[in-house]
Amino acid sequence: MSFDAAVHAKAIELDLLSLDMTAAAGSGHPSSAMSLGHIVTVLMYSHMRWAPEHPTYPTSDRLVLSEGHAVPIVYAACADVGVTIGREGEPGRPMTREDAMSLRAADSMIDGHPNPMEGFPFFDAATGSLGQGLSVAAGLALAARADDLDKRIYCIIGDGEAREGQVWEAVDFIVEHRLSTVVPIFNCNRYGQSDQVSGQQSAATIARKLEAAGMAVITVDGHDPPAIRSALESARDRGAERALVAIVAETVKGWGAASMQAGGWHGKPATGEKLEKARRELMETRARLTSALASTDAFAIRPPEERAAAGRRIDEAPSFGDAMRQYDMASTLAAGRFSTRRAFGLGLRILGHANSSVHVLDADVKNSTFTDLFASDRELSSRFHECRIAEQNMASVGVGLSAGGKTPYMATFSKFVTRAYDQIEMGINSGADLKIVGSHSGISLAADGPSQMSLPDVAWFRSFTTMKDHRGNPGCYVLQPSDAYAAYALTQVMAEYQGCCYMRVFRPDVEFLYDDGTVFNLGGFETLTQGRDLVIATAGYMVHECNKALEHLDKAGVDATLVDLYSLPFDEEKFLDIANDNGGNILVVEDNYGGGLGSAIADACTSGGDAFTVRQMHVRRIPKSARTTDEVMAMCGLDAMSITAEAARMLGVRL
Amino acid sequence: MSFDAAVHAKAIELDLLSLDMTAAAGSGHPSSAMSLGHIVTVLMYSHMRWAPEHPTYPTSDRLVLSEGHAVPIVYAACADVGVTIGREGEPGRPMTREDAMSLRAADSMIDGHPNPMEGFPFFDAATGSLGQGLSVAAGLALAARADDLDKRIYCIIGDGEAREGQVWEAVDFIVEHRLSTVVPIFNCNRYGQSDQVSGQQSAATIARKLEAAGMAVITVDGHDPPAIRSALESARDRGAERALVAIVAETVKGWGAASMQAGGWHGKPATGEKLEKARRELMETRARLTSALASTDAFAIRPPEERAAAGRRIDEAPSFGDAMRQYDMASTLAAGRFSTRRAFGLGLRILGHANSSVHVLDADVKNSTFTDLFASDRELSSRFHECRIAEQNMASVGVGLSAGGKTPYMATFSKFVTRAYDQIEMGINSGADLKIVGSHSGISLAADGPSQMSLPDVAWFRSFTTMKDHRGNPGCYVLQPSDAYAAYALTQVMAEYQGCCYMRVFRPDVEFLYDDGTVFNLGGFETLTQGRDLVIATAGYMVHECNKALEHLDKAGVDATLVDLYSLPFDEEKFLDIANDNGGNILVVEDNYGGGLGSAIADACTSGGDAFTVRQMHVRRIPKSARTTDEVMAMCGLDAMSITAEAARMLGVRL
Repeated sequence: MSFDAAVHAKAIELDLLSLDMTAAAGSGHPSSAMSLGHIVTVLMYSHMRWAPEHPTYPTSDRLVLSEGHAVPIVYAACADVGVTIGREGEPGRPMTREDAMSLRAADSMIDGHPNPMEGFPFFDAATGSLGQGLSVAAGLALAARADDLDKRIYCIIGDGEAREGQVWEAVDFIVEHRLSTVVPIFNCNRYGQSDQVSGQQSAATIARKLEAAGMAVITVDGHDPPAIRSALESARDRGAERALVAIVAETVKGWGAASMQAGGWHGKPATGEKLEKARRELMETRARLTSALASTDAFAIRPPEERAAAGRRIDEAPSFGDAMRQYDMASTLAAGRFSTRRAFGLGLRILGHANSSVHVLDADVKNSTFTDLFASDRELSSRFHECRIAEQNMASVGVGLSAGGKTPYMATFSKFVTRAYDQIEMGINSGADLKIVGSHSGISLAADGPSQMSLPDVAWFRSFTTMKDHRGNPGCYVLQPSDAYAAYALTQVMAEYQGCCYMRVFRPDVEFLYDDGTVFNLGGFETLTQGRDLVIATAGYMVHECNKALEHLDKAGVDATLVDLYSLPFDEEKFLDIANDNGGNILVVEDNYGGGLGSAIADACTSGGDAFTVRQMHVRRIPKSARTTDEVMAMCGLDAMSITAEAARMLGVRL
Repeated sequence: MSFDAAVHAKAIELDLLSLDMTAAAGSGHPSSAMSLGHIVTVLMYSHMRWAPEHPTYPTSDRLVLSEGHAVPIVYAACADVGVTIGREGEPGRPMTREDAMSLRAADSMIDGHPNPMEGFPFFDAATGSLGQGLSVAAGLALAARADDLDKRIYCIIGDGEAREGQVWEAVDFIVEHRLSTVVPIFNCNRYGQSDQVSGQQSAATIARKLEAAGMAVITVDGHDPPAIRSALESARDRGAERALVAIVAETVKGWGAASMQAGGWHGKPATGEKLEKARRELMETRARLTSALASTDAFAIRPPEERAAAGRRIDEAPSFGDAMRQYDMASTLAAGRFSTRRAFGLGLRILGHANSSVHVLDADVKNSTFTDLFASDRELSSRFHECRIAEQNMASVGVGLSAGGKTPYMATFSKFVTRAYDQIEMGINSGADLKIVGSHSGISLAADGPSQMSLPDVAWFRSFTTMKDHRGNPGCYVLQPSDAYAAYALTQVMAEYQGCCYMRVFRPDVEFLYDDGTVFNLGGFETLTQGRDLVIATAGYMVHECNKALEHLDKAGVDATLVDLYSLPFDEEKFLDIANDNGGNILVVEDNYGGGLGSAIADACTSGGDAFTVRQMHVRRIPKSARTTDEVMAMCGLDAMSITAEAARMLGVRL
C-alpha cells in the first residue's frame, strides 16, 4: 500500500475511534479531531522520533497539542500504538482501545483535555485553555538546548486559537531565541466554536503574520499525506540549519464525513443515527481513497536516539552573610539594610551556581527584580531567558522548562504576574515546578501608583493553598519574606520543593530582622516578639510597620506578640495556641486587599468553634501615588500609628 | 515662526517641564516623555479637535496613552493649555504648572500613571499596566460609532510594549471591525526598561506585522514636525475613507538631551547636576532648531464639533415569566427547569431592548453563554461585538465602551475570564461600568475537566468586595444566581448600578427556586429554608446540592437553615443574626477553591469576638473530567450525601 493510502487508512481509523470515544463520553470535539487525522498520523506514525513505551524519553520528539479540545485524535493514535499511561510514581501500562473508550470517565486517565498529571505523560503540560501551547513548546526547546538534546517540538495550534495574543508572544520569543527545533503547525479548519473563524485568522493571514515576525512558512493541504510529510521534512531540514519554519495546514473540520462539516458541530459528539451516518461516510471516504485493506507497512514509528537524561548538580549554597561577603558587599551587610528584592536576586545568583537545573525568566524588569545579577553572571547567563514584556508567554515557557526537567524562576512586578494567572493555573494543573517571584508587591512602592501595585494577589494565590495538587501538596505556597535573610533563604528553599510557589518581595530597603541562623520552611512562621495581650500577625513589608507599632504599644503598656507569617499555608494549630496565649486577640495587618492573611487566619479561627477576635487591617481603597512609602501607608491607614491605634482599640486601651 | 520651529519650541518646553516635574516627584519617566514631545505637541496643539476646558466633550478626539509611564509629557501639555481637572462629581478647574509640579504627591490629582478617577478626566481609562490602551481605544471607537459621533481616537503605544500579545489582539479587532477612527501610533524609541528593545519590536518589524494584519502603515521620524503633521493628516483622510492606518514613529528616548540618551535612564528622573545638564542640552537643542523666541502662533488647538451627548433610553423590563412567554417558552417555563446561563442570555436580550446603552462582548462562546440570543436579535445585533478568542482585548474594549458612556456586558467561560484579570483590575481603577459574566462556573460542567473550570475565581473577585472604589462602592460585586429567576433578575440589576460586577452562571439546567415576586439586590441574600440547628450557606449550583442535603438532614431530625448567599459583599449583621439563631453553627458549601464564600463568612464571624463554628466545604483537589455533574460532585466531596454527612458530624448527629 502506498504511503498516501496508508495514511488515509490510518487517519480514518483514528477518526472513527475519535467518533466512538466521544460518543461513549457523551461529549467532546470529534469534528476538530477529524481535521487533524492526517497530520497526527504522519507526525506520530512516521515523522516524529519517539517510543510509545517511553513517551517521556529524553531524546524523544514532543507533541504539544495547544488546541487541547482536539485531543481525541491523539488519544486514538496512542491507544492504537499502546503508549504507556499511568500516574506519576505508579507503574505504567500500554494504553488500550478500552482506555480510549473511557474518555472523560471519572476513573479514567483519559481526561477531557490533555493532562499529564492524570496519567497521560505523553503530554508535557495540561492544555485546553487556549493559546498557551506554543509557549510551552518554546520552554521545552530551551530545556533541550540546555541539555544538548537533539529533539524537535511539534505544536498544533488552532486557527481560531491564533487570535490569542499569547500565540504571537510565543512566535516572537521563538524567533528572537532562534528556537528552530520548534515547529508550529497551524490547523486552519476555518470553524471556531460559535462561528466561522475571522479573516484575521485565515490561513493566508496567519502565514503573512508569521512571515512578518520572521518565520518561513510552508502552507499545505492538511489532508494530503505526501504534502504533510514533505512539509515536516522540509521544516526539519531547514530547522537543522537554524531556520525558523512554521507549517500552515488548510484542513476540514469533520473531514471525511460530510454530515459533520457544517457549522454547529463544534464540541458535539455524534450519537445514534448521526454517529452511524458519520461512520458510514468515513468508510465511503476510505473506500474511495484506499484501494486495499488498511496496512501500515508504508510507515513505521522512528525511535529516538539512545541517550541518558541530563543530570542535575546540586551543591550546598552559602549563607546570606557569606554570599554578601563573597560578592564584596560586606559593608552593605554591616549597614544592616537591604531590600528583599535584591536579596532574592543575590539568592538566585548563588542558587544558579549551586543548582544546575535553575533557569530564570524575565519580562524586561531584571534591573528592578535584580534577576540581572543572574543574567550578567557569565557562568549563568545561558540559563537566563529574556522574555520581554510578555508575561503570559513567560509563564508558559516556565511550564515547558519544568516539563523539560528544569526549575524555572519567573520574576516580574507582582502586579504584572496577574497577566499570567490563567497560565499559572494551567501550570499548577500540569504539576509544573514553577517558582514565581513578584517584586514591588503591595503598596510600598508608593510613587508609581496602583497600576504597578499588587492588591488582590494574595487572595488569588491563597486560594491554591486551600487545596492539594496531584502530589498531595498545596497547589501553591505563598511566601512573603520580611527581610533580606528571609528572602535569600526562601529563594533557596523553593528550589528544594517540587511544585509551585509565589514569593512576594518588595521595593524599599528595610532593616534586617533575622540572621544566618534562622531556618525558614515552607509552612513555617516566626514569632518575632513574644507578648500576652494580643497577636499582631503580618508578613513582608508590613512586619516593619508593625514593629514600629510595637514600640508605641509598649509605651502604652500593651504587651503584644508579633508573628511574621511568611508562609501560607502555615501551622494553624501552633498559631492558634499563640493566639490563645494572647487572650484570643488577633490583629492582622497586610498591604493588599482582603482575602489574604486575614482570611487565612479567620478560616483557622472559626474551624474549631472557639472564640477569637480577629481585626483585619488591609488596603480598603484603590491606592494612588504618593512620593514616599510612609505617605502611602498613612493614606491606606496602614502606618504604624494606625496599627497602634487599632490594637489599642481592640484592647480598650487609651493611648 | 514656522510650524517646524514652533513645534520644536513647544516640544522642548514640554520636555523641560517633564524633567522638572519628575525631578520634583523624585521618580517618573522623563526620557520616555521626551521621546514623545513632538508627537504630543503636534497632536494636542494642532491636529486633534478638542477643548481643554471640556476634556470629555462628546465629539472631542481622544488620546489614549497606552504606555502610561510616559505621561509627564501629556501632563506638561495639559498644564500649559489649562485642561480642566477635578474628581468625579466635584467642580473642575484649569490645571496649572503647580499642579504638574505636584506629580505623584499624595494629595495631587496628577498621579504617577494616567488615571481619570484621581481627577484627570482628559484620560478615559487608567493605563500603566502595558498593552491595554489600543483595546481601550477600540472600545471608545465602538461607542462613538454607536452614537454616530465623528471623532478620532489616537493611541500611543511603546515599542517594547508592543511585545504584549494584547496589542495584536487589538489590531485584529480594529481591522475586523473596520474601526478606522482609531489611529495607533507606535513610539519606537528603541529602549525598554532593562535593555534595548528586541528586533521583534523594531520599527520595521512592527510595520510589517501591522501590514500583515491588514493596516496601512506610515513610518515617520517622530521628531520631524511636518512629517508628523503630514502622517496624522494622511491617517485622518484615509481613515475617513474607512482605510485602517497606523503610524510608526521612530523616536529618541531622551530626545534633545544627549546625556539622557544612553541606556539606564528608563524610569529615572534627572536631579541635581544631571538635571541642570539635561536642561542645558535641551536649551542648546532649542537654540539650534528655533531661530527666534518660542511662539505658538503657528498652530492652534482645533475645537470639537458642537453636539449634545447621546441620550440613553431606559424602559421597564418585563419579568422572567413574561419574558419566557414573550419568546414562546411558556412550556419550558411550565416544565420548571432552566439553566442560569440561558436565563442570563434571555435577560440580556430583554435588557438590550429596554436599555439602549447596553453593549455585549463575546469571545467565540456565544452559543454557550447564550449571548447569541442578543447577537441574533436584529434590533440588537449592532450592539453585539464579537471579540473572538481574545479575552484580554475583550475586557479592555469593555473599559473603552464604558468610558464612551455605554454599559458593556462581557461574557465567556468563568475560567477564561481569568485571562483578563489584569485588564479587569485596570477597569475597576478606571471606574469602568463593566459587567463580567462567567458561564460554566465551578465544577458542575464536569466532562471538559479543569482546563474549563473556574476554581480560584471567587477568591480573586471577592478580594475586590473588601475594598471601595472611587465612588465608595465595593470594587466589584460577586453574584452567583442559583436559578433562572435569580440569573434573569441580576442581569437587570447589574445595569442599574454604576460599577463593576462579576456574575457567575453555570452549565446545567436546574429547578426553579424563586418566582417573579422575588426581589434580588446587590448585597442581598435569601433564606430558602428556616431552621434552628445550623445554617448551610451556599450559592449558585451548590444551592441545589444543599437542598437535597436538607431532605436527608430532615429525616435525621436535623432542622437546618438554608441561605442562598447570591451576593458578595452581603449584609453581615443580618447573616450573623441568623447564625446565632442556629446555635452559631455554619456550614459553607461552594464549588470552587477556598477563599470565597467560606472566608467571607469567617471574616464576618471573627470580627466581633463571638464564637461561631464555621465548617467550609469547597473544592480541595484539582478536579478532573467526569461524565456527569453528580460524579464530579462526589469526586470533590461536594455531593448532597457528603454535605449531609458533614452537617451531621458538626452537630454530632448519627445518620
